[in-house]
Amino acid sequence: MNTIINNQLNRRSIRSFKNQPIDNEIIEVIIEAARHSATSSFGQSATLISVTDKEKKQQIADICNQKYVADSGHLFIIVLDHYRNHRIATEENVDTEVLASTDRFLAAAMDCGLMAQNIETAAMSFGLGAVFLGSIQNNSRKVIELLDLPEYTFPLLGVAIGYADVQPQIKPKLPKNLMHFENTYQRFDNYHEALNEYDTIISEYYDTRDTNRRVEAFTTQMTKRMDIKHPNRMKNLEVLNEQGILKY
Amino acid sequence: MNTIINNQLNRRSIRSFKNQPIDNEIIEVIIEAARHSATSSFGQSATLISVTDKEKKQQIADICNQKYVADSGHLFIIVLDHYRNHRIATEENVDTEVLASTDRFLAAAMDCGLMAQNIETAAMSFGLGAVFLGSIQNNSRKVIELLDLPEYTFPLLGVAIGYADVQPQIKPKLPKNLMHFENTYQRFDNYHEALNEYDTIISEYYDTRDTNRRVEAFTTQMTKRMDIKHPNRMKNLEVLNEQGILKY
Repeated sequence: MNTIINNQLNRRSIRSFKNQPIDNEIIEVIIEAARHSATSSFGQSATLISVTDKEKKQQIADICNQKYVADSGHLFIIVLDHYRNHRIATEENVDTEVLASTDRFLAAAMDCGLMAQNIETAAMSFGLGAVFLGSIQNNSRKVIELLDLPEYTFPLLGVAIGYADVQPQIKPKLPKNLMHFENTYQRFDNYHEALNEYDTIISEYYDTRDTNRRVEAFTTQMTKRMDIKHPNRMKNLEVLNEQGILKY
Repeated sequence: MNTIINNQLNRRSIRSFKNQPIDNEIIEVIIEAARHSATSSFGQSATLISVTDKEKKQQIADICNQKYVADSGHLFIIVLDHYRNHRIATEENVDTEVLASTDRFLAAAMDCGLMAQNIETAAMSFGLGAVFLGSIQNNSRKVIELLDLPEYTFPLLGVAIGYADVQPQIKPKLPKNLMHFENTYQRFDNYHEALNEYDTIISEYYDTRDTNRRVEAFTTQMTKRMDIKHPNRMKNLEVLNEQGILKY
C-alpha cells in the first residue's frame, strides 16, 4: 500500500474547519494540480473560481445552507465552461450550436468531475481536508449571478478545503459486490436483502453533522430521499437551458 | 512538492500499452480506491464494471474506435447508476420519479467523475498509465446492451489502464490566467489574442496519436470541433431519456 492509496482509502468529508489560513503557495499548487487535469477532446471545459471575497463566500454558504463553507480556508467553484470555446469559434464566425448538445455537456461535466477530485487529492496531500458542495445547486441562478458567469457556463460543484477541526469516522461505502461487476450489470432479486449487512453497518455510523445521533440505514436514507424535491433544484434544467446548454 | 502533486503535474493520457498483465491484487486495490470515492448525498450513484471478457473488450474498442482500448491491461466502465436506489425505494412502494430529474443526474454524474479520477490516481500510484474514454459515447446504446445495463443507468466514461509502452510529452494545458479566476468570471475582449502564446505552445506539441505531426493551434482545434457532430452522440439525450433519466 502506498501513500496515495492510503490517502484515498482514508478520505472523509470534512465539515468543520480550524480558523487557520492556508498558505497561498499551497493554494497555488492545488490550482496547478487542477490545471493539469485530463480533459475530453482537449476541450478544457472546466473553469475554476476561487471565492475569496468574504461576502460572496458567506452568500454561497447561505445557498449551501452549510455554515462550514464560510469557515473554510478556501472555497473553489468548478464551472462547466463552454463559453471560452464558444467565443473562440465565434471570433472565426463559426456556429457553436453543438455546444448546446447533451454530448458536449457530458464531456464538460466529466472535465469538472476529474478536476474536482484532483483538487481534493492535492489538498489532502498537504494535510488539508475537503468537502464537495453539490449544495450550490440549491440556487444555481444565484451562484451564476454572484460569480457573474456568462452564457454557456454552469456552476457544477463546489469544493471547500481547510484544516480539519475534527477527524470524523470514515463513512462506510457500499460493499464491493454491490458497486463493482464484471462484464455484466448484476441485478439483485431483493435489494433490502442484499444490503442487509450494509444497512446494519451504516446504522452504527455516527454522522459528523450530528455526532450525537446514529444515522439511518442506507436503504431508509435512499428511500426517504425520493421525496426530497428542492423547488430550485427541480428547475436546474431550466437554468442550464437559459445558459444555452443541455438543450438537446 | 510531494509525490501526489508530482504525479498530478506529470499526468498524461497513455494510448499505447505493453502486453504486460496487471496483478490482480493491484486491480483489487484500485477498485477499493474507487469504492471509497466521495458521493453526493450518500447516493453512491456510480457503479463500476470491469470488462474482462475479450470479445466485449474488443467490441468496446471498436465503439471507441481506438485499438489501444483492446490492448489495455484493464478496462473499467463507469456507470451512472440510479437503478440501485430505484429498486430500493420501489421495494418500499415509494415513487422514484425524482430520479429522472436533472438535479439527480448532475449529482450522479459528479459521483462518476470523482470515481474516474480516483481510478486514474490509484493506477498511477502503481506506475500504471491510464486514458479516459469519453468515446464510449460513440454508441452508448451498444454499450448499454453489451453490459446489460438496466433502466436508470447510463455508461458515462471508460478508463483503460495498463503499463505504458510510450511516455508521451505532457500536453500543455490552458495557462492559469485563462482557467482560474477570483470571485468573478473574467471575460476577455479577444480570445485569439488572449490565447496567442498558448496557441504557439500547442502548435509545437507532438500528439502521441501521430508522433510525426505537430498538432494544430488550440483555437483552431476548438473551432474545428464545432463541426464535429457524431450522429449517435447527438442522440445521447434520447438514450438517456429511454433509460429513464435526465427527463426534466
